[in-house]
Amino acid sequence: MLTDTLIRSGVQAALQEDSPWGDLTGEVLVPAEAVATARMVAREAGVLSGGRVVDVAFTTVDPAISVRLERADGDALEPGTVVATVVGPARGVLRAERVALNFVQRMSGIATQTRAYVEAVAGTGVRIVDTRKTTPGLRAFERYAVRCGGGHNHRFSLSDAVMAKDNHLAVLGDDPERVTSALRAAREALPHTVHLEVEVDRLDQLDAVLAAGVDTVMLDNFTLEDLRTGVEKVAGRALVEASGGITLPRVGEIALTGVDLISVGALTHSVAALDLGLDVEVAV
Amino acid sequence: MLTDTLIRSGVQAALQEDSPWGDLTGEVLVPAEAVATARMVAREAGVLSGGRVVDVAFTTVDPAISVRLERADGDALEPGTVVATVVGPARGVLRAERVALNFVQRMSGIATQTRAYVEAVAGTGVRIVDTRKTTPGLRAFERYAVRCGGGHNHRFSLSDAVMAKDNHLAVLGDDPERVTSALRAAREALPHTVHLEVEVDRLDQLDAVLAAGVDTVMLDNFTLEDLRTGVEKVAGRALVEASGGITLPRVGEIALTGVDLISVGALTHSVAALDLGLDVEVAV
Amino acid sequence: MLTDTLIRSGVQAALQEDSPWGDLTGEVLVPAEAVATARMVAREAGVLSGGRVVDVAFTTVDPAISVRLERADGDALEPGTVVATVVGPARGVLRAERVALNFVQRMSGIATQTRAYVEAVAGTGVRIVDTRKTTPGLRAFERYAVRCGGGHNHRFSLSDAVMAKDNHLAVLGDDPERVTSALRAAREALPHTVHLEVEVDRLDQLDAVLAAGVDTVMLDNFTLEDLRTGVEKVAGRALVEASGGITLPRVGEIALTGVDLISVGALTHSVAALDLGLDVEVAV
Amino acid sequence: MLTDTLIRSGVQAALQEDSPWGDLTGEVLVPAEAVATARMVAREAGVLSGGRVVDVAFTTVDPAISVRLERADGDALEPGTVVATVVGPARGVLRAERVALNFVQRMSGIATQTRAYVEAVAGTGVRIVDTRKTTPGLRAFERYAVRCGGGHNHRFSLSDAVMAKDNHLAVLGDDPERVTSALRAAREALPHTVHLEVEVDRLDQLDAVLAAGVDTVMLDNFTLEDLRTGVEKVAGRALVEASGGITLPRVGEIALTGVDLISVGALTHSVAALDLGLDVEVAV
Amino acid sequence: MLTDTLIRSGVQAALQEDSPWGDLTGEVLVPAEAVATARMVAREAGVLSGGRVVDVAFTTVDPAISVRLERADGDALEPGTVVATVVGPARGVLRAERVALNFVQRMSGIATQTRAYVEAVAGTGVRIVDTRKTTPGLRAFERYAVRCGGGHNHRFSLSDAVMAKDNHLAVLGDDPERVTSALRAAREALPHTVHLEVEVDRLDQLDAVLAAGVDTVMLDNFTLEDLRTGVEKVAGRALVEASGGITLPRVGEIALTGVDLISVGALTHSVAALDLGLDVEVAV
Amino acid sequence: MLTDTLIRSGVQAALQEDSPWGDLTGEVLVPAEAVATARMVAREAGVLSGGRVVDVAFTTVDPAISVRLERADGDALEPGTVVATVVGPARGVLRAERVALNFVQRMSGIATQTRAYVEAVAGTGVRIVDTRKTTPGLRAFERYAVRCGGGHNHRFSLSDAVMAKDNHLAVLGDDPERVTSALRAAREALPHTVHLEVEVDRLDQLDAVLAAGVDTVMLDNFTLEDLRTGVEKVAGRALVEASGGITLPRVGEIALTGVDLISVGALTHSVAALDLGLDVEVAV
Repeated sequence: MLTDTLIRSGVQAALQEDSPWGDLTGEVLVPAEAVATARMVAREAGVLSGGRVVDVAFTTVDPAISVRLERADGDALEPGTVVATVVGPARGVLRAERVALNFVQRMSGIATQTRAYVEAVAGTGVRIVDTRKTTPGLRAFERYAVRCGGGHNHRFSLSDAVMAKDNHLAVLGDDPERVTSALRAAREALPHTVHLEVEVDRLDQLDAVLAAGVDTVMLDNFTLEDLRTGVEKVAGRALVEASGGITLPRVGEIALTGVDLISVGALTHSVAALDLGLDVEVAV
Repeated sequence: MLTDTLIRSGVQAALQEDSPWGDLTGEVLVPAEAVATARMVAREAGVLSGGRVVDVAFTTVDPAISVRLERADGDALEPGTVVATVVGPARGVLRAERVALNFVQRMSGIATQTRAYVEAVAGTGVRIVDTRKTTPGLRAFERYAVRCGGGHNHRFSLSDAVMAKDNHLAVLGDDPERVTSALRAAREALPHTVHLEVEVDRLDQLDAVLAAGVDTVMLDNFTLEDLRTGVEKVAGRALVEASGGITLPRVGEIALTGVDLISVGALTHSVAALDLGLDVEVAV
Repeated sequence: MLTDTLIRSGVQAALQEDSPWGDLTGEVLVPAEAVATARMVAREAGVLSGGRVVDVAFTTVDPAISVRLERADGDALEPGTVVATVVGPARGVLRAERVALNFVQRMSGIATQTRAYVEAVAGTGVRIVDTRKTTPGLRAFERYAVRCGGGHNHRFSLSDAVMAKDNHLAVLGDDPERVTSALRAAREALPHTVHLEVEVDRLDQLDAVLAAGVDTVMLDNFTLEDLRTGVEKVAGRALVEASGGITLPRVGEIALTGVDLISVGALTHSVAALDLGLDVEVAV
Repeated sequence: MLTDTLIRSGVQAALQEDSPWGDLTGEVLVPAEAVATARMVAREAGVLSGGRVVDVAFTTVDPAISVRLERADGDALEPGTVVATVVGPARGVLRAERVALNFVQRMSGIATQTRAYVEAVAGTGVRIVDTRKTTPGLRAFERYAVRCGGGHNHRFSLSDAVMAKDNHLAVLGDDPERVTSALRAAREALPHTVHLEVEVDRLDQLDAVLAAGVDTVMLDNFTLEDLRTGVEKVAGRALVEASGGITLPRVGEIALTGVDLISVGALTHSVAALDLGLDVEVAV
Repeated sequence: MLTDTLIRSGVQAALQEDSPWGDLTGEVLVPAEAVATARMVAREAGVLSGGRVVDVAFTTVDPAISVRLERADGDALEPGTVVATVVGPARGVLRAERVALNFVQRMSGIATQTRAYVEAVAGTGVRIVDTRKTTPGLRAFERYAVRCGGGHNHRFSLSDAVMAKDNHLAVLGDDPERVTSALRAAREALPHTVHLEVEVDRLDQLDAVLAAGVDTVMLDNFTLEDLRTGVEKVAGRALVEASGGITLPRVGEIALTGVDLISVGALTHSVAALDLGLDVEVAV
Repeated sequence: MLTDTLIRSGVQAALQEDSPWGDLTGEVLVPAEAVATARMVAREAGVLSGGRVVDVAFTTVDPAISVRLERADGDALEPGTVVATVVGPARGVLRAERVALNFVQRMSGIATQTRAYVEAVAGTGVRIVDTRKTTPGLRAFERYAVRCGGGHNHRFSLSDAVMAKDNHLAVLGDDPERVTSALRAAREALPHTVHLEVEVDRLDQLDAVLAAGVDTVMLDNFTLEDLRTGVEKVAGRALVEASGGITLPRVGEIALTGVDLISVGALTHSVAALDLGLDVEVAV
């Protein structure tokens, strides 16, 4: 899903941003014929994501640069693990360095954090899923990073699945029959391929929603007890997603309530870059 | 420096990403004539950044939406502070909501974190400055957010200032005279408006660098004692920047060493979104 | 789903194509101050689609032009029905005319043809759905036109739903258990919001597919009798889509087999423009 | 005139539309290492147009795909004729398939229809020419397809030739001398390379137009008899183009009136896709 | 022909180039609320071209700026002539100033130089025409400026008219019959709206070219006497264009040879900017 | 600083402008298989700039064309000097010819003119620098050409350095202390990498400006005597730039006043193309 077209487009924009008229430093201090041999190395433990982006970043700046990926996306990294080896004209290597690192550090930070959540629910069969709380412009990259960490993706955008939230239900008012019929009408109007998910804030909203035959119900900010009750009420008629205030310490017990999915905004909206660096040797 | 052109371009790309073919949910559940009144509210304490982006996000989706900013960028927010009031067609308000929040949460997260660093060095006259470790595509937004938090910006890109780092000096070898003459030659080749900064890893590199007449020396990963010694050696002949492994607990004592600038990559590469939400009421 | 952003983008590209450096004829023969009053009129019976595109075409060329839509998309047109009234600077009206007509004629042609299919299955509850056999660059416009004619949309693209076709199943080979397990594995890997549809060419493929728990089965090029048998075998466990060689004379009896959906490539790949013209009066 | 730049641009936009975030189906069901051998085959008789577009579509998705064109544009196809052989990574072949077919089916449909018109006027020396009634965004592709069918092109756009139509003449009023002088003034203002064509609706308009020394007169919606009279009156002083309501059954007798050109909007505005398919074999 | 779409696009690119991240000077030295009143004034005599571009430049930077054009394109300017009055937020006025001047100075320089050539041939009925020797990216602007100076345009590009030059004829070889038949074949293949011009370097090439029935012959680098002979030989069967080494002192006598057109590359390839400045008063 | 990304982008735009739908002439007169051997030759003496642009222009049109640069940018050319040899498909060579020449002629014109200024100040150590008076869209190309001629660049844009001009100082009023404090405040607000230059029109403004600690003072339109006095007053506390009405005859004596920099708008705003041509031989 993270196609080469998307990668090239993202990398070119980042390079344009980081060196619109070239790299002054390289031009005045590095001879044009100097060759660099560089190794991208993890400086802390984590999960790799973004190897292909690294490759594209260096080769876009200069096709004469060769990149060999030493680890695959999803691999666990330890401090010192060599992720990639980069060889080529030194000016190009130094010009692409920061862009390559900015991508791979952020993506690996997401993969690393996701894996922590995934491991915290291991054995329960529950999916950790992302949200639309992604960095503007980088959604495809960040969704991919979530998958590298073992997570699953939610809908891509407002255009490919329906999620009726509190504000939408508020428009329909309190009459359960009206809610049911509105959701049925929505289903009738939508392409048959569109998934219909509905967020509920209280258990008493469930009946009207389930009566409409939805695909997933999201239980937003529910207590553990209410989550268990909700799962029982749904009784397999729809997938159940827990959402709201999910943290790493709490995610394990939430997974034990029987929900199918747990969505975690922090996977992408609050991310510490994974520390990776580029060790460069230049031969003139 | 964060021009309306940049804001519009960033917002349009984000909207295109988040709803390429419209918002299915709004179209099937919200009447076209429904009107929303929404308040963007801080859910935790922090510093605001991105008010103008919020404005552009909603009005780009539907020019019939009006946005009134209740707080200015740089203002301190408390839980419950209303940041903006948004009124207009409900479909448009709901479609723009996530994009507006994704920008303002990230930008305010940066401003909030920056202010913590700035306050930690208050009274020392030292500048907290950002780096090129920004999110690809969002550099202008993130640099602006740093300023909202009271920080200063470093160079924008590889194209507008020179920063000679370890790899560049390695090309020159160990002969101090060669380093000096190479830096002088660089100065001669560069436009007179280009700032020349050089990173040193050891105190013994300083003489050769200063002999060349550079504008700033960056002392990378120096101990407190070495920073003090470095500042003494420079003796006002250049600005002094401390860099490398700067953390909030350490930044105060670093500032007391006499350096002029402290650059902090974490200002932008590891950011927790500031929690802001949109409280919406829809009238049909 | 046909957002103003998409309309503006499509119209601007069309105008750029049709008058990259302006309209020579208008510039040499029509005074700058001449004003045109024009009526867009149906020259044959059909269904309207594209009113908003007409509006955008004229006002993009010259914001001083006003467009009043006299009929709504989906309305039935008779020869002579006035669809829109356009008033403004004559040079702009004449420059935008062809672009406006090229869009609305094609879109209305699709809506008209779709309505014929929809009426041929009226009362059966069967959906007429489109395909990906659309004109390159105009998919959002053509899908919208299908809905104006009373049809429904299928998936938008390869990125938002899964359709396993003969070539995909051929990769899996003839072993039914392998087919079932591969489809289950696919489901496991996909976001929970992604619809899983499988095309089968023979009745004996159905069991393996249904065992995997798919959402829709497409029966491709089946006889009426086989369609009936297929619907019985599926027995409500999935939606059933008939496809392949659907023509207007045959669609009614296909609908009576009990399928849920009939997809028709010709809705968009073979379209006669609906004849609409612009009657213009120019006052100098 | 259909340059590779235009082809690449059109193909990339179509691929972006058809698989913005990749092909979900291929990713979950086709092994990355699977290789496809595919043949593009005509399912009905017609004229080929778009071979180069097919090539670009597959190789843009994956440069590892090779395409061998077995027939040239303009060649007659019979049911079963193999048009192209495509070999390469199966995921890429399946992802590009629909885009390649959407282009070549439409272009070949146009070429096929054009050839029917061209053959209906064979031996008369009359040109069948297209119009600006093309699909928005595809004009260069459709004009090329017309040429593949043996037709000729009219002006490309409003910017490269003048066509004074009824609305333009109406601005000038009924005074023949004013018409003549206005057309002469237009000629004087235009670059000497710009062709000047004028549409007349009645025979009595001809004298004023010819007196101005135009390059082509278009006789719009004339009877056969009036066409013959018109040709006589023009007497070689300009080219004569017949236009309006041209159909295949009528085009032959129109050609016998002595006109030089017959323009046919239906060549591009009402087109049935030529049925071509891709027979794929996948080896894992 | 210089449409607002072209102007906006050119101006936006220029602003993006001249202040990609805003105007540092204005932001640190000019209060946001300061208002500027500015007059664009000619500092030397010449011909104005680009008024509309000036308007778009200022209002694109800030829609709150108002621009009143005091002179029309094509007007003669004296030192001190006020061309436009600009009022609005000072930051915006100062930011747009250079871009507006860069356009109008170059365009007016072209118009001024063109008028000198036009006046040198006044009374002869000869057209001064431009060439494709324009600044990359600015052709539409520069062609427009030529018209402001009283000149005429040649073809816009390689795509809208044919010009067979020495290299093309060299391909055909020395046989006059082959030249004639090749040109006739070209005419047959081209759209009827395409102008066919042929460049000849020697008088003895004329017969073969004229026999083919071309629209214009260009006599390249001919002596005055040969030009006269050439005009006689053509005898009205085609337009005659003189080209090659045209200078202001020589253009008058060339016009007297009876040619129809004289093309001058220097109109656009060697231009002195017309000196215009912006007198600004800022009120805080 | 003139990166390949910039060159490709500029060349593609120019080709799109010069042959949007291909080269009609080549298509009708040059066989597809014809091969051209061409030499780009200087027709007058000057300095080369743009070799890499020539290469990109031809190979972008057709990658089968090979370009060998025979001279390097900055080299002196004499009439007849062969600059590049171009071999490949004739249609492509002829299509790219004008675009390649339009770039290299303008760039070499700038380099040639710059070298004249540089030689006029030879031995003084003074820099000849360019200005923002460049052709819209071509700034990076023209700055590069200035360097090829031996000149230096000034700031790239409003975004990378501060230049306080008369209008900015006027905002501050006549009080010298206010000027000093405003400039100091500006310095405090700006990134430490931003150069601060101030233009003064009178000697009595110097004290206030120097008191603020600026990097460069520009003495605008000063007499020779005042320049000398200014240099004395500055006394090495800042760089000194002379500006305003600089001409080739005057530049030598200005350089002798002791200034560091002389900026010359005419380097880029008034340029005569250097005459270079393409001698082509075509083999069929």
